[in-house]
Amino acid sequence: MKSTTEYLFINTKKPREYINITPEVEKVLHKSGIKEGFILVSAMHITAGVYVNDAESGIIQDIDEWADKLAPKGPDYYHHRTGEVNGDAHLKSLLIHHQVMVPVTEGRLDFGPWQQVYYAEFDGQRRKRIIIKAVGE
Amino acid sequence: MKSTTEYLFINTKKPREYINITPEVEKVLHKSGIKEGFILVSAMHITAGVYVNDAESGIIQDIDEWADKLAPKGPDYYHHRTGEVNGDAHLKSLLIHHQVMVPVTEGRLDFGPWQQVYYAEFDGQRRKRIIIKAVGE
Amino acid sequence: MKSTTEYLFINTKKPREYINITPEVEKVLHKSGIKEGFILVSAMHITAGVYVNDAESGIIQDIDEWADKLAPKGPDYYHHRTGEVNGDAHLKSLLIHHQVMVPVTEGRLDFGPWQQVYYAEFDGQRRKRIIIKAVGE
Repeated sequence: MKSTTEYLFINTKKPREYINITPEVEKVLHKSGIKEGFILVSAMHITAGVYVNDAESGIIQDIDEWADKLAPKGPDYYHHRTGEVNGDAHLKSLLIHHQVMVPVTEGRLDFGPWQQVYYAEFDGQRRKRIIIKAVGE
Repeated sequence: MKSTTEYLFINTKKPREYINITPEVEKVLHKSGIKEGFILVSAMHITAGVYVNDAESGIIQDIDEWADKLAPKGPDYYHHRTGEVNGDAHLKSLLIHHQVMVPVTEGRLDFGPWQQVYYAEFDGQRRKRIIIKAVGE
Repeated sequence: MKSTTEYLFINTKKPREYINITPEVEKVLHKSGIKEGFILVSAMHITAGVYVNDAESGIIQDIDEWADKLAPKGPDYYHHRTGEVNGDAHLKSLLIHHQVMVPVTEGRLDFGPWQQVYYAEFDGQRRKRIIIKAVGE
């Protein structure tokens, strides 16, 4: 069994931002030398998500508006009694989910034609971290 | 470490459909000979989901109506500027999530009594693909 | 490849309850002796969730109200024709997701500073089960 672990740091310019990190996942795969196994891609923060979907600017805008409709910014969340103002970002992280598992087969990411790994920042403008961990053989 | 990868093809008759694929997951398990490990079951499309829940027709109907309430068909999504009409299916895929990990213990799917693996088609009537990948020993 | 599987039993006092099970996940890790790998933490019921987020009482209350807003208790779900009354708990399980994968690096849970594993009970007051399965080396 082989394993390779890398950490990706992202500091977005906007509070909410969606970044295609598929190239970074591929880099970890190639570094690992793994031919068969899984790669976990997981936000290390509780106000961000990782998902697999389309690299199309329209759907990214749809995802942003949809997440903000279902988990709106603004309301006076109980969490804000701590002084925080990012209650919505916690709920968006749960909605989108904070992680995906990418299958690796014959040394490549075993994705369908349109699948891309995205980091979804819901409380940005500061340095955040993502773990990319490949395990296999 | 052993690994076995199979692809399941599904072409639904209806645009939205929910299919119990637990028997197919078990087939991959038996083929793999794995006693301890994980099986990833993951849609290879960005308009479909994979989830674990009940094989009961009422709850399936509830899931369908609920997903369509939270990510409704129809609205003029930004994604539709590309000529697509399936923006809702992308959001439903995110809501339900596109994958699950099934634990394997002593050579069997280590599920509770009511847990079944479902493929959730949100944009069907064409050939779609699911990866079932078992890794373990 | 090593693997260790433990089952955690929880019987909540309230119908809905959120329990930090990170210490139990760490116990399984230490028992396993694994240095590199993954731990699957997965509800074995279809009316419960497992998620990673903050150990802060306000956000837990927010998560509870948010889940009940998006998947409300009460409506006459199709599932209730079976005599069940927990349709909302099935949908909440899908919303929150029933499982997470925890990365293990150098013998510890490889989490960011605020990440904690929670069991989310949506239909409690009876004995329920969670699988914690560590696989690695």
